[in-house]
Amino acid sequence: VSTITLTTDFGTGDWFVGTLKGVILGINPRATIVDITHEIPPGDIRGGAFALAASFRFFPAGTIHVAVVDPGVGSRRKAIGVQTANYFFVGPDNGVLSWALAKEKVNEVRALENKEYFLHPVSRTFHGRDIFAPVAAHLSRAVRMRKFGTMLKEFLRLPCPEPRRRKDGRIEGEVIYVDRFGNAITNIDASILADVKNASGKVLVGGKCICSTGGFYDSVARGKPVAVLGSSGFLEISINGGSAAKRFGLRPGTSVVVHL
Amino acid sequence: VSTITLTTDFGTGDWFVGTLKGVILGINPRATIVDITHEIPPGDIRGGAFALAASFRFFPAGTIHVAVVDPGVGSRRKAIGVQTANYFFVGPDNGVLSWALAKEKVNEVRALENKEYFLHPVSRTFHGRDIFAPVAAHLSRAVRMRKFGTMLKEFLRLPCPEPRRRKDGRIEGEVIYVDRFGNAITNIDASILADVKNASGKVLVGGKCICSTGGFYDSVARGKPVAVLGSSGFLEISINGGSAAKRFGLRPGTSVVVHL
Amino acid sequence: VSTITLTTDFGTGDWFVGTLKGVILGINPRATIVDITHEIPPGDIRGGAFALAASFRFFPAGTIHVAVVDPGVGSRRKAIGVQTANYFFVGPDNGVLSWALAKEKVNEVRALENKEYFLHPVSRTFHGRDIFAPVAAHLSRAVRMRKFGTMLKEFLRLPCPEPRRRKDGRIEGEVIYVDRFGNAITNIDASILADVKNASGKVLVGGKCICSTGGFYDSVARGKPVAVLGSSGFLEISINGGSAAKRFGLRPGTSVVVHL
Repeated sequence: VSTITLTTDFGTGDWFVGTLKGVILGINPRATIVDITHEIPPGDIRGGAFALAASFRFFPAGTIHVAVVDPGVGSRRKAIGVQTANYFFVGPDNGVLSWALAKEKVNEVRALENKEYFLHPVSRTFHGRDIFAPVAAHLSRAVRMRKFGTMLKEFLRLPCPEPRRRKDGRIEGEVIYVDRFGNAITNIDASILADVKNASGKVLVGGKCICSTGGFYDSVARGKPVAVLGSSGFLEISINGGSAAKRFGLRPGTSVVVHL
Repeated sequence: VSTITLTTDFGTGDWFVGTLKGVILGINPRATIVDITHEIPPGDIRGGAFALAASFRFFPAGTIHVAVVDPGVGSRRKAIGVQTANYFFVGPDNGVLSWALAKEKVNEVRALENKEYFLHPVSRTFHGRDIFAPVAAHLSRAVRMRKFGTMLKEFLRLPCPEPRRRKDGRIEGEVIYVDRFGNAITNIDASILADVKNASGKVLVGGKCICSTGGFYDSVARGKPVAVLGSSGFLEISINGGSAAKRFGLRPGTSVVVHL
Repeated sequence: VSTITLTTDFGTGDWFVGTLKGVILGINPRATIVDITHEIPPGDIRGGAFALAASFRFFPAGTIHVAVVDPGVGSRRKAIGVQTANYFFVGPDNGVLSWALAKEKVNEVRALENKEYFLHPVSRTFHGRDIFAPVAAHLSRAVRMRKFGTMLKEFLRLPCPEPRRRKDGRIEGEVIYVDRFGNAITNIDASILADVKNASGKVLVGGKCICSTGGFYDSVARGKPVAVLGSSGFLEISINGGSAAKRFGLRPGTSVVVHL
């Protein structure tokens, strides 16, 4: 039993995602296909990279993760397949895989070149269907990595904004993702915060303290803000029963300072 | 073959639902996972309860229904597993399961306490991933109910607005759900209406007759309103080819009177 | 292993799609169910017809395609099952299947009449659940076409706007679908364009040249328009990294002229 996940900016309003699944099932009728999300904003490579990095490790070992946010489709950007200690990753070499790969031991990177494993004719606008889906399906049937193309030494890595500890001891980071609930997820992670669960920290945005740290959303009254160590392992600014992003105007890139 | 259904307010824009599925497949790679919906408005326990109550009985016996609309996650609200005559139900003990359970013979209610069946570390903000998904997956592998925790005598029941027959013979109910098509589903069900199919009933909102009862949407001209006995077994106010909710300003709670 | 695809206007906000899947799994627990899309605008039969026609052939032979965009549910429109050289199709006889069927060799058309294969009681508002889903599930268990009802000689065919070559050699067509990315897909296909890949064609809308043809989206600078032979086999007007539909006010029905 092989699982293939899909993370794309295709949306679910058209037939694109269904088509990918048809191609996969034509090659491996026993594949289990799981949607991570198809609502990455069109062309938002960082959004796709973050969604994949936040979710890939919850899948069983051997899972094949396909990510297609591919504004450069048809141009000379490479298509790659990557084998890590635990998973396979398939997608364009534009950085969309790189934040997940940064957390894994990378064993082998291959350019996807062998047309034998593509859907024909290969279009110039839909490599999700014609290259990435069929390659993933063949991987799920245990085709070896070396069959797909040349070994590569490198792949494109997106810069990942790192939080930093200032001289005054405060931690400075930024919002990296806003989720459906309006929680503003920052790049400030558990390791740098160490004991945020217990410490009474203050969170500052634009120089103003907007909330304290807490254990969970409902640890404050309804409508009140709190910063919790969220399920992805990052500090997130939330409002119990509301949208912190809307209330405080938070979006990816907004600077956040934590004062423990 | 075991089916697990998911009803949540997670949306499909983030990676939350995909993550739940990864956790389930890690425990039971053969589980069949079906989305009921993930578009319950954030924190709307009644919306989740209604969606589950309207759909659960169309699944094969033995199906495990997981519902996670959980604004109190991390607080002291209990997590429960329920075995009924035909199904299993898993979710927070905040009422989201209760409208479905009201239609089933409840055999056993357990607090989900045994950490052996959780994903570790258990976060304080995402019990869908860390508790409900893994417990459902273990249930699908035939782990016994008694393994999960203490037997409970009670679970939280959401009040369910009941229609009533007035002295003048009219039936008084309310809108309980508005669907994608703008159909306003009321709490007035087949049993109290008995022969609505034949009777020429009138439907009043705000004291004004807005339409008559009919057999199906297309039984009136395009753009015209009609009240039909809908697929969930409740009277719903519809417009052939349009949105009754918009036209008449109907929403959950709007009072509706039927005069047969 | 049998695949059943679903193309509907049910949306994913309610429980309708989940319910269909429950009914299918109750009849055939081994069915693989794939969503093509559920976001066809309510009642838009042409939208559903196009989505199905653009995707059905990417599925393995034997796949059962169910399409339910059914504003006339409950009226006297027929329900049909169709067997073609490669696939099965199930849906209302209102044209939603017809653009896909136009590309297939049709072997047999049956009225769906045999109540033995329906879900009971059959509602008058939700034949997706009560007729189309159970019939598809029985088909996936190899029930013979002749079991479902009378053989039909005809089915309703939606007119399909055809592109035409004008006396001056220009090709005249129209926009037929706008996708998530704002690409305006026309009805001008590869066969009539023959060598659009090489030819330097001009695309005119409202008498004004808006762009040239190109090989792929990224063949022009970001923010620039280009007309590519898209993945569905039709010429589409695009903007690299933007929405051509918004920029040029394109929508289904907009006239498009190509001057090679």
